[in-house]
Amino acid sequence: MKRVNLLAGGPVDQWASELATITTVPGQWITADRGTLRLLQQGVTPTIAVGDFDSITPAEKEQVLAAVSDIRSVQAEKDETDTQLALSIAFEELQADRVVVYGATGGRIDHFLANLFMAVEERFRTVLNRIEMRDRQNTIQFYAPGTYELTKEADKKYLAFIPLVPTTDLNLVDEKYPLTHFDTKVPISWASNEFIGEKAHFNFKTGIVAVIQSKD
Amino acid sequence: MKRVNLLAGGPVDQWASELATITTVPGQWITADRGTLRLLQQGVTPTIAVGDFDSITPAEKEQVLAAVSDIRSVQAEKDETDTQLALSIAFEELQADRVVVYGATGGRIDHFLANLFMAVEERFRTVLNRIEMRDRQNTIQFYAPGTYELTKEADKKYLAFIPLVPTTDLNLVDEKYPLTHFDTKVPISWASNEFIGEKAHFNFKTGIVAVIQSKD
Repeated sequence: MKRVNLLAGGPVDQWASELATITTVPGQWITADRGTLRLLQQGVTPTIAVGDFDSITPAEKEQVLAAVSDIRSVQAEKDETDTQLALSIAFEELQADRVVVYGATGGRIDHFLANLFMAVEERFRTVLNRIEMRDRQNTIQFYAPGTYELTKEADKKYLAFIPLVPTTDLNLVDEKYPLTHFDTKVPISWASNEFIGEKAHFNFKTGIVAVIQSKD
Repeated sequence: MKRVNLLAGGPVDQWASELATITTVPGQWITADRGTLRLLQQGVTPTIAVGDFDSITPAEKEQVLAAVSDIRSVQAEKDETDTQLALSIAFEELQADRVVVYGATGGRIDHFLANLFMAVEERFRTVLNRIEMRDRQNTIQFYAPGTYELTKEADKKYLAFIPLVPTTDLNLVDEKYPLTHFDTKVPISWASNEFIGEKAHFNFKTGIVAVIQSKD
């Protein structure tokens, strides 16, 4: 299974704990925006960097250009963010089976929501369940209609189910707070649920559901 | 115009800068969850506190019970968060013309999304444009279909338009990156737009749009 890590430009103080020893994180890296400089500063060189690096200093830009052999820019006429392009490249060119996205949360909420809502874009529909976003307190995964088994992360206490688009017949089978045949036309965050054991099961008929494991 | 402030339980390090001198913030306060203890610690007593205070120490709970004369709990059978109930009370009982929500962002993403998606609930539809969420880097406002003029906040650089539900005919008239007759069936964050002058105009026909002013 080929894992690719994507580092976006969100604040470092929200990074998932495993980035403290980033060189031990398995898989190659692709970076977007400020993620490129930050990864280089950690001693890791991305396979591909996306961005025009206009918001960093000329010296920093030199450093990026010298270190990274494959740099891509979003075409100005395309309504696409660097992170969206990086995610596309991770699946299409790097042939990722799984992309773990870091630096996608915290700080500017318009950025975070742009990252979160990548999951509802048509082009990512077939790879939805292979995208994972991780930060200091949260792991976010995405699901297309179907029946699923979740495994509890040891350091997380809470479990949330978040229909991002109109969703039908959501069933939380064996969670602390069950839900049966739930339909919604608007997005909703069923927060603060919990695993009873090590596994939890859910299913739904139409829509897209984000699942978040989190801790305080 | 009656302003009510709502303090939810999000992390203090994400608080909007005006909470550094919280006693000068105009309007009465209603609190939810951990917001109650935090407000008391700042020397301000809320008019109403919502929560069962099970996650704080017995000594802290004593402090809350001694200080706050009006304490409410969400009924266990209602699928409602403390913050949702507090927002309802602010409009219905405290007769707020405007509710400024603090502590609604940062930390656990399931909590943040529950707060954000309050805006799409049917019960808040008529008061949508009177809700504002503020943190260290972001101000979020909500709009029902119509034509609007926005005023730039002096300390913010970026402007984002975020249809939260299926939305039609969104027009960004005089922003740095205009948009015409945009329809979407899924949520999307048009991030990193900017004001050209001090005012910006937009309109849309159906849906709900969040507008975020932010800074890095």
